Amino acid sequence: MRTQVAIIGSGPAGLLLGQLLTKAGIDNIILDRVSRDYILGRVRAGVLEWGTVGLLDEAGAGDRMHAEGLPHDGYSLAFDGRDHRIDLFGLTGKRVMVYGQTEVTRDLMDARDAAGATTIYEAANVTPHEFDGAKPYVSYEKDGVTHRIDCDFIAGCDGFHGISRKSVPEGAIKTFEKIYPFGWLGVLADIPPVSHELIYANHPRGFALCSMRSETRSRYYVQCTLDDKVEDWSDERFFDELRRRLPQHHADAMVVGPSFEKSIAPLRSFVAEPMRFGTLFLVGDAAHIVPPTGAKGLNLAASDVYYLFNGLREFYADKSRAGVDAYSARALSRVWKSVRFSWSMTTLMHRFPDTGDFGQKIQEAELDYLTHSEAASRAMAENYVGLPY
Amino acid sequence: MRTQVAIIGSGPAGLLLGQLLTKAGIDNIILDRVSRDYILGRVRAGVLEWGTVGLLDEAGAGDRMHAEGLPHDGYSLAFDGRDHRIDLFGLTGKRVMVYGQTEVTRDLMDARDAAGATTIYEAANVTPHEFDGAKPYVSYEKDGVTHRIDCDFIAGCDGFHGISRKSVPEGAIKTFEKIYPFGWLGVLADIPPVSHELIYANHPRGFALCSMRSETRSRYYVQCTLDDKVEDWSDERFFDELRRRLPQHHADAMVVGPSFEKSIAPLRSFVAEPMRFGTLFLVGDAAHIVPPTGAKGLNLAASDVYYLFNGLREFYADKSRAGVDAYSARALSRVWKSVRFSWSMTTLMHRFPDTGDFGQKIQEAELDYLTHSEAASRAMAENYVGLPY
Repeated sequence: MRTQVAIIGSGPAGLLLGQLLTKAGIDNIILDRVSRDYILGRVRAGVLEWGTVGLLDEAGAGDRMHAEGLPHDGYSLAFDGRDHRIDLFGLTGKRVMVYGQTEVTRDLMDARDAAGATTIYEAANVTPHEFDGAKPYVSYEKDGVTHRIDCDFIAGCDGFHGISRKSVPEGAIKTFEKIYPFGWLGVLADIPPVSHELIYANHPRGFALCSMRSETRSRYYVQCTLDDKVEDWSDERFFDELRRRLPQHHADAMVVGPSFEKSIAPLRSFVAEPMRFGTLFLVGDAAHIVPPTGAKGLNLAASDVYYLFNGLREFYADKSRAGVDAYSARALSRVWKSVRFSWSMTTLMHRFPDTGDFGQKIQEAELDYLTHSEAASRAMAENYVGLPY
Repeated sequence: MRTQVAIIGSGPAGLLLGQLLTKAGIDNIILDRVSRDYILGRVRAGVLEWGTVGLLDEAGAGDRMHAEGLPHDGYSLAFDGRDHRIDLFGLTGKRVMVYGQTEVTRDLMDARDAAGATTIYEAANVTPHEFDGAKPYVSYEKDGVTHRIDCDFIAGCDGFHGISRKSVPEGAIKTFEKIYPFGWLGVLADIPPVSHELIYANHPRGFALCSMRSETRSRYYVQCTLDDKVEDWSDERFFDELRRRLPQHHADAMVVGPSFEKSIAPLRSFVAEPMRFGTLFLVGDAAHIVPPTGAKGLNLAASDVYYLFNGLREFYADKSRAGVDAYSARALSRVWKSVRFSWSMTTLMHRFPDTGDFGQKIQEAELDYLTHSEAASRAMAENYVGLPY
């Protein structure tokens, strides 16, 4: 088999890149080691920057998002018993879209089906080869047979644990990492959200987040320790803890109900540099991970796709390597700003075991300052809605 | 003896308060355990917020400052081999004044002399008494004789190590503290400053600051370890290290010369709450310490003085206790914002032993973001020139 761009990974990054390439007339094949149903069974977050919304529209996969997604014009910062709204639209002229990542993935898969482009699921031992030269290829096994896809470029969209980054010689890559000393315990429940906008809560007992998937489905989180076990957290204990961390009027207004998903996620910041190795490009989680505070993970994958897609389009349309050559530097410049913002919002909102009461007071002072400073509120808002590409 | 307000401490906080009170017709006596010459021999920083400049004018002690001080409209953030100017005046409409704290102290002493108000230097064992009631007094010893000053209020302006805070019963006070894992090695030298504005430098080897006292006297600092000894730092070693931490064009332009002062200062954040105990008020360093990054120490003392002076003026002119009763809450609200800014700028600009390369990249990403975001630059600038009282 031969294609122009082989894409490893059928998550939203790979699918978005594939769909943009297909619409631009650039042939591509997507490979994934797991099944379509498995991918659609993953629970992920879902706050889309307006730039991400625009890319989904450009990919022809935005219709259901606009019909069913919830545009949000602001969110709330709760602390010290009160809450303060960050007026995203008023401060930046931009909104965000609350629309689950699973739905984004489904819409992109449907669009890809409609376009007739090839996706190979349950491909075993997917491996990129010879990407240090102009004739790379990807091998994989299916039903006991080894296959080979020759291509011009390989896009590694296969996440943090994927093969793409691991295929790069160790000395060619530099990594930066921070592991946070806590996790997020999250539940999904079919109950109306306590507020029609997100609430990010700072509390001496720890961070909490009230989020939603729809008007009838809530996604709530509380900061937990790395030792916590899901089985020790009954729904009752979870909601009691969540309410303790919210201002009274939110705690009083909260409707509780049985959760149908409950899990603990660790928090990590990670960046690999560079993001290009010859004809192999790392995209999204394959190159970087952010903690979920600030909702940047999917959006950062989308901005990588933006830079890579435009580089590839220039290569095929204009015979120019400039965009391809600039991919890593352009992507990383924005990656680090989002990594910084995610780190900063995580640092502002969580209780850290080693900073004590001084740390708590500094956080409350920053939040108090934010509520009084238009400049500081705007700086936070412009990061939340997404810095320009 | 009897006075209306007994002021412990003849540094800039006590002198500024005394001068404002005197001009408002409120009788006051200042006591200090050391001599006038000793106080004038201390080397301190000197970047004044415009609000501090206004208070010095109001106190009738601003003439020499306006004649000899250097108004600054901006400063430079140096990092990653380049530098970026924070345009204070363009972003906020305000300036700062570079004028040494020792000069401020001298001008306030001269103004106090001209007004004929009483200062008692070299007063031993100064002690505040019975400030939990309406009849407080201060005792001290001089030439072997114990004296007593009866008063309505006591202002504790005697610094971090002074008697005022130590006189408060332990259970009545809560303290918050952070010790930073590094120090500042500073030199004074009669050489022209490398730039006519301050340069705050972030470098993987550590922070550096190029500051000045005048067009012919430079005040330079490099971050050092807590183990460093002044005697291990020759002028040559100091200037070599300073230049390594600056962008090349500054390093090349630097004039070096013999230092006449060289010292190492630790960095600490500290806040005591509350700042009022009956008829005793803590003012300035007696209640809070900030690291010197951001130049907030003296300015925070000035804002405390502003709130206390206005409270006392209302008490005597309008028979209202409202301002006196609100002093602690008003002062602390602004104190915490300045403590936060000083912590934040320290965290942004210094190399921390435990954050590694990830920490360095996060700092460079924040500095890069600052250079591209008007909102973030303005948030930094509005803190630097001073938040409103």
